[in-house]
Amino acid sequence: MGFKYTILGGDKRSLELGKLLMKDGRDVCIYGFDMLEEYNNETVSLNEAIEYADVIVGPLPFSTDNLNVNAPFSNKAISIDMVLDFMSEKQMIIGGKFNIEHEKKLKNKNIKSSDYFKREEMQVLNAIPTAEGAIQIAMEKTPVTIHNSNVIVLGYGRIGRVLSKMLYGIGANVHVSARKYSDLAWIKNYGYISVHTKDLKTYLPKMNVVFNTIPQMILNKELLKSIDSNCLIIDLASKPGGVDFEAAREMEIKAISALGLPGKAAPVTAAMVIKDTIYNIIEELDV
Amino acid sequence: MGFKYTILGGDKRSLELGKLLMKDGRDVCIYGFDMLEEYNNETVSLNEAIEYADVIVGPLPFSTDNLNVNAPFSNKAISIDMVLDFMSEKQMIIGGKFNIEHEKKLKNKNIKSSDYFKREEMQVLNAIPTAEGAIQIAMEKTPVTIHNSNVIVLGYGRIGRVLSKMLYGIGANVHVSARKYSDLAWIKNYGYISVHTKDLKTYLPKMNVVFNTIPQMILNKELLKSIDSNCLIIDLASKPGGVDFEAAREMEIKAISALGLPGKAAPVTAAMVIKDTIYNIIEELDV
Amino acid sequence: MGFKYTILGGDKRSLELGKLLMKDGRDVCIYGFDMLEEYNNETVSLNEAIEYADVIVGPLPFSTDNLNVNAPFSNKAISIDMVLDFMSEKQMIIGGKFNIEHEKKLKNKNIKSSDYFKREEMQVLNAIPTAEGAIQIAMEKTPVTIHNSNVIVLGYGRIGRVLSKMLYGIGANVHVSARKYSDLAWIKNYGYISVHTKDLKTYLPKMNVVFNTIPQMILNKELLKSIDSNCLIIDLASKPGGVDFEAAREMEIKAISALGLPGKAAPVTAAMVIKDTIYNIIEELDV
Amino acid sequence: MGFKYTILGGDKRSLELGKLLMKDGRDVCIYGFDMLEEYNNETVSLNEAIEYADVIVGPLPFSTDNLNVNAPFSNKAISIDMVLDFMSEKQMIIGGKFNIEHEKKLKNKNIKSSDYFKREEMQVLNAIPTAEGAIQIAMEKTPVTIHNSNVIVLGYGRIGRVLSKMLYGIGANVHVSARKYSDLAWIKNYGYISVHTKDLKTYLPKMNVVFNTIPQMILNKELLKSIDSNCLIIDLASKPGGVDFEAAREMEIKAISALGLPGKAAPVTAAMVIKDTIYNIIEELDV
Repeated sequence: MGFKYTILGGDKRSLELGKLLMKDGRDVCIYGFDMLEEYNNETVSLNEAIEYADVIVGPLPFSTDNLNVNAPFSNKAISIDMVLDFMSEKQMIIGGKFNIEHEKKLKNKNIKSSDYFKREEMQVLNAIPTAEGAIQIAMEKTPVTIHNSNVIVLGYGRIGRVLSKMLYGIGANVHVSARKYSDLAWIKNYGYISVHTKDLKTYLPKMNVVFNTIPQMILNKELLKSIDSNCLIIDLASKPGGVDFEAAREMEIKAISALGLPGKAAPVTAAMVIKDTIYNIIEELDV
Repeated sequence: MGFKYTILGGDKRSLELGKLLMKDGRDVCIYGFDMLEEYNNETVSLNEAIEYADVIVGPLPFSTDNLNVNAPFSNKAISIDMVLDFMSEKQMIIGGKFNIEHEKKLKNKNIKSSDYFKREEMQVLNAIPTAEGAIQIAMEKTPVTIHNSNVIVLGYGRIGRVLSKMLYGIGANVHVSARKYSDLAWIKNYGYISVHTKDLKTYLPKMNVVFNTIPQMILNKELLKSIDSNCLIIDLASKPGGVDFEAAREMEIKAISALGLPGKAAPVTAAMVIKDTIYNIIEELDV
Repeated sequence: MGFKYTILGGDKRSLELGKLLMKDGRDVCIYGFDMLEEYNNETVSLNEAIEYADVIVGPLPFSTDNLNVNAPFSNKAISIDMVLDFMSEKQMIIGGKFNIEHEKKLKNKNIKSSDYFKREEMQVLNAIPTAEGAIQIAMEKTPVTIHNSNVIVLGYGRIGRVLSKMLYGIGANVHVSARKYSDLAWIKNYGYISVHTKDLKTYLPKMNVVFNTIPQMILNKELLKSIDSNCLIIDLASKPGGVDFEAAREMEIKAISALGLPGKAAPVTAAMVIKDTIYNIIEELDV
Repeated sequence: MGFKYTILGGDKRSLELGKLLMKDGRDVCIYGFDMLEEYNNETVSLNEAIEYADVIVGPLPFSTDNLNVNAPFSNKAISIDMVLDFMSEKQMIIGGKFNIEHEKKLKNKNIKSSDYFKREEMQVLNAIPTAEGAIQIAMEKTPVTIHNSNVIVLGYGRIGRVLSKMLYGIGANVHVSARKYSDLAWIKNYGYISVHTKDLKTYLPKMNVVFNTIPQMILNKELLKSIDSNCLIIDLASKPGGVDFEAAREMEIKAISALGLPGKAAPVTAAMVIKDTIYNIIEELDV
């Protein structure tokens, strides 16, 4: 495991990742942060940066234009094709959200690669800073404590599970809605009040905070009507989300779309999650 | 939902189920308990018992000989073929563990049926009396409290999840072993100590109780050697289980195979689980 | 319990209290908020406001100058002597932090009175918004999640108990320090890591957040030296608090004095706490 | 702390205590177990046994007849006066439940002594095996799981607190009754349903298990009438306890008096509790 790493582009989370790897005693080369004072006299070339490492760590997402590595803190473009050209078959590249074309090229060049964003454990671990970020928003935007409040989590997937556990731990009256009876059984088992999705209308009126995790329209005009005007809605589902925000505005219900919480609320934890996932990837390859 | 029910055979759990249905205000006919004093002057015939109900509720397992309904408290054989002959297309039959032949017959006769044992929510809910039964055994067979003991749960499926949560709630130092990194992430998220299966040997020596939920040989001679002689092993996996009992006996390690715990440790709860599942089945059919 | 109430002065928390009493169906007169638009055409006189009610509810603190009732949203001075003169023996006055002189006057006039701030249950309930406010600050000011962080709570009084429970519920590695062995036993019993005060030096270096609840100098220069520069200190003890802030600033350790959290982080909850306490006071008097 | 210990009399818990001290690497002399095969060729005299140690550890209770040390596994009487005569001022004696006369003699002889039973932390730690023993009984004697059952704990002292926490951790619907509003506030804070003692009659009818911890008559004939015939009552309060057992028998309500649970349900844990308390005593004396 005495691997050398090159952090290739990315935002501050990538930088934190580099620091965490160093703290673990790994050799790390940072490339693509020349806009930051700390790194602006980088003299190492892309070729050297690539050659340095056993493992090249790309950002999340790996690219935003499909041509260059996503590197918001670099004045230089980092061409994906060049990166691959510089790599040898002994090296591996790990990044987040490779697209199909990238993966095809990697395969053609016979370069070992892995997409950390596709890893189930990364999704699980990422749910933690997401949930905690959502709780922070609820604390900031309501005049009541979460303890003893009526809160409901819509959906019992990864984020729903982590979020409901934390809310329960703080002392809220936690409701969780789901459609599947087995999910409802799990919800009850963990001590929360289970709500079948079809019964939402009955439960919504007394809620202080509604957290949505379902990535499709769920809080439509109809359901919004049953929500109290003092209630806060926090939508954690990726765009377009699960809330009719326009209708909410008209009804003067506070509704917030909260995305990218891990990077915003807890960038160091977000970097740790990637680091742990990278270690798992490497360990599995070794075996 | 004003359905009438006939409880057709089964053990005391089926009888409890009948009582619970009555408590809920349902009309219930009990058939196949003539060996019990309370029911020994049953004058109703099988045909009448079948005709009486909208829903026929069979036992778990439905049959042990594939010919007759499983009815340990009846002196009369209850022929499955006769039951099906007496039924009409308006009725439905719900039982546990139908075999393929039964299901074929039901289909041929166009009779609505459902196997409650195949329902995911029943499996989840059944994990609760299983886990609690296992904890009771641990309390009875060890001279230490579970609180502050080192315990490990092997496997993080349904029973593993429910059991580790309860042990944690009592205050044990809960370890849970799994192979998948995503399971390990969940284990950590719930506050337990996660142990990769390959590292069991390191953790086993300091355990006070080992609960196995994995239905294949896991505690083999090799691993048993690392277990303390005061440790108690409780195997919850169905036969042949996951423990080399012979080797355990030779090493004088106490190992218990604990099966059928719901019916033994909490028959009324076990009946409730079936009742709730039946209600879910009926509700889904209605929709 | 069909009592009439007069809210006499106070800040927005008192106003929320009035609204909560009305929500419960009580008759409420609001006096002393003429600076707020909503109430600026109050035509009722002090005498009328006093006469109106069975229970006069004063603010927390009752007075800041010992002459007038504390009424930051009123242009008129509300003389305590006049209030008492207008009151009859059938009425009662409830306020927070009466001083000795007030209590003497109340006794002389034979007026029933009670200080809600002295009530143990109010102190307990107030610990909840305090703890939650502290957690909100920790979430805002650290780049890591509380989940899986190393946190320590200094002191195991009311706030310490509520705070450690919530931190544990979120998934932190909760340490709590105390001096008494019985407190240390309780700390262990609740699943936290117990730290004897004399061993703080050993535990502080690995902490991400330190919450102090002890109202005397505890984090002195000597102990601050053992704290990591990335650690956040939140001091919840009333002035002068338990942290050498000057030394912390010199060492570039972030230290925050967080006071009055209930009113700031959750004013509606803070009002509920007072309301519940008032109800308890009234119920006890009736008996 | 390199002290030598003599275990002087007592039951199997004292013997376990001796073994635990040895496991910790202490030198230990066992005296007063000659009825057990393992120790029946003890050749050491009482004088030698006393001289051997820095700390003499007596049983709990120290004496049952006020003349001799309580030693149910010894054929020889161990005179308290002789023990004290053999001791010097350099030694100390630690026991449980010294009576006033013993303490007077110890003082006269200038012998350091301490009563571990009087230590608050011992009472707290002892509440754990008591609570767990009570839960074991509830599991054994009811046909339902504790999970999802309605249970009530009468009294919120040490045992009440530990017991309600464990029941909650298993997933029961935990009710706790108390008289003081501050206790009721704590009960709510921990997530349990708080019941004022005067409202017991309203809550008792739907309970599956009632745990009493109050050492005075509480479940009298009147209240027993409101209890369901399937309900189980477990009385943990010392004799005469808090239940009218005669009335319960007449009404055919199952009521169990469960005393001495630590020694019965978890003798090794009970010994650990004494050991930890002894260490605390010694550490405090050193300082």
